Amino acid sequence: MKIVCKKSDILNGVNIAQKAVPGKTTMPILECIVIRANANNIKFMSNDMEIGIETVVDGTVFEEGSVAINEAVFSEIIRRMPDNDISIETNQYFITTIKCEKAEFSINCKSDEEFPILPEVEKKDALSISQFSLKEIIKQTVFSISTNESQKIMTGELFEINGDEFKVIALDGHRIAIRKIKLNNEYKPTKVIIPGKTLREITKILSGEVDKTVNIYFEKNHILFEFENTIVISRLIEGEYYRINQMLTGDYDTKIKCNKKNLIDALDRSTLLIKESDKNPIVFNINDFNLNVKINTEGGAMSEDIEIQKEGKDIVIGFNPKFLLDVFRVIDDEEITLYMTNSKAPCFIKNDEETYDYLILPVNFSAGR
Amino acid sequence: MKIVCKKSDILNGVNIAQKAVPGKTTMPILECIVIRANANNIKFMSNDMEIGIETVVDGTVFEEGSVAINEAVFSEIIRRMPDNDISIETNQYFITTIKCEKAEFSINCKSDEEFPILPEVEKKDALSISQFSLKEIIKQTVFSISTNESQKIMTGELFEINGDEFKVIALDGHRIAIRKIKLNNEYKPTKVIIPGKTLREITKILSGEVDKTVNIYFEKNHILFEFENTIVISRLIEGEYYRINQMLTGDYDTKIKCNKKNLIDALDRSTLLIKESDKNPIVFNINDFNLNVKINTEGGAMSEDIEIQKEGKDIVIGFNPKFLLDVFRVIDDEEITLYMTNSKAPCFIKNDEETYDYLILPVNFSAGR
Repeated sequence: MKIVCKKSDILNGVNIAQKAVPGKTTMPILECIVIRANANNIKFMSNDMEIGIETVVDGTVFEEGSVAINEAVFSEIIRRMPDNDISIETNQYFITTIKCEKAEFSINCKSDEEFPILPEVEKKDALSISQFSLKEIIKQTVFSISTNESQKIMTGELFEINGDEFKVIALDGHRIAIRKIKLNNEYKPTKVIIPGKTLREITKILSGEVDKTVNIYFEKNHILFEFENTIVISRLIEGEYYRINQMLTGDYDTKIKCNKKNLIDALDRSTLLIKESDKNPIVFNINDFNLNVKINTEGGAMSEDIEIQKEGKDIVIGFNPKFLLDVFRVIDDEEITLYMTNSKAPCFIKNDEETYDYLILPVNFSAGR
Repeated sequence: MKIVCKKSDILNGVNIAQKAVPGKTTMPILECIVIRANANNIKFMSNDMEIGIETVVDGTVFEEGSVAINEAVFSEIIRRMPDNDISIETNQYFITTIKCEKAEFSINCKSDEEFPILPEVEKKDALSISQFSLKEIIKQTVFSISTNESQKIMTGELFEINGDEFKVIALDGHRIAIRKIKLNNEYKPTKVIIPGKTLREITKILSGEVDKTVNIYFEKNHILFEFENTIVISRLIEGEYYRINQMLTGDYDTKIKCNKKNLIDALDRSTLLIKESDKNPIVFNINDFNLNVKINTEGGAMSEDIEIQKEGKDIVIGFNPKFLLDVFRVIDDEEITLYMTNSKAPCFIKNDEETYDYLILPVNFSAGR
């Protein structure tokens, strides 16, 4: 194999492909990126057995062929090369020579024979969505996914398509995040559970531009994202997702509206007193026009008043401040609205347009606080 | 104690004082900053038993007094407060209330009784130097200090003053760094060894401006740096420094001149093949107008040619590339000059003005390379 590409193009390809190179693995071949040069194109491939990535890199092919090259070494070499054309040449023993101007590296590489082939996904009935929308909707929900592997379904997000409605749900047993957007076309009903890891990696690769499109293809066990020069294939999580509709009641006894930034700043300050070991909740004491945010820990106490608009009853309710912050940080609105019933019932954060609906379970707090 | 200061002033004071708060200590009082408010001023103090810092902070004293407050907690609270006036008030039980706008923290603090007093250093015969010069001369030498605590003297730098010459020497058994500058006045001969840690912290505090001055006072066991609102007092290392003059010969068999950036780039690339475990040297093969930089490791090989001007014999010589990079990175000149004798004798990097002189011992390399 012999190819010549611009440094920036190689770097771009490596940055995409490395997202499916596992941090730790017992299979050394998975630590490699496969470079495959055909008459038509140059592809960089990676596969961690959960996600597979294939991206096309611009360049000139002087000799067809392929090689599996350690991703960490390869990306470091490319990064430190001068900003110019780089040639990559592999001999019959898979010793790969990487040249740029007067600098020359020789690296022992491997055949790509052992490299696991990416699953074939048939490209039919694409769902089209802008990169911006997909990236946003993932970021606005993915924090609610559980990291506890014992309940596999909670480690993924539900993508639910119904006509022109695209709904994403993530939950971890303490909170639920729901986001909805309208699609430009009608699609047949689809429900799939996508691993959280896949979603996190996808958001890192997507440029997030409004006028660039992602095509999404669904199969029984796999999902394929296609955008620009890249495809990302991921396994799906098997099983039936939780039925959450009965949890989403419209009833409430207290409704408050307040400035998002003021509340974020107060919560942010409160968290600095919390150590890993103690689980002290933050207590909201809501009456009339005032929300008092208070926390008591071994390290000290913090208290702050925030102006609010209130409808309904006064209430005292405790929360894990991280859960609130996670939600407030992905809401674009300046004003946020919270709906509460009592100190044991879930709190909802939602907007009138119903494009988002977040549920957070409160935390017990001792009455003495 | 009750004081009110601007957030930015407190933050600035904390950032200075925290440089002498130890990362790990068995004495919890040392993890504190002492705030001391007198009629005249507010001082923040810290002391890790090697370095002590005292810095004056602008503000209004409503009640004199003092308190020892955990530095990590205090700096986090101040950082997250709104950008406004902050009041700090301590009651008789050393519970300290920190207020800003509507936010209020209460923290359990300590009396400063247990806090070790900073040593008294008599302020006479100050050596005056610009912050810029002091910061530079430390940065240009401090990397050559040994981290091996078993040879205490090597863990410090020699400051040697003779008339109007200020010379700084650092060495670790494999290399020597020497920098000289001219002072604006004549001073009496002085030789002190200053701990590397002190020097590293000083460079972090110094703003490094050319027209701001540092006054340095020497005593038998201590050195005191005074600048702007701050004093830093450090212990000195006891003992006699190494006599290095006999090592600094003017003889050489090979002299090369080359572009610094080209050489740094090549060395930088070479280091990526070096793993912690192997100690492969980089080999310079110098003949006529060419310097070939080459390295062979288990991970692969790298080779690069660099244009040079040469006087004297051809030579093949091996180095630890890190030692070369450390030196080249603190030299301002675009062209650098290396003087070598043979593959076992030290290499010198110096300029004609003799403001710097770096010595690096070569490393053995197998002839087969």
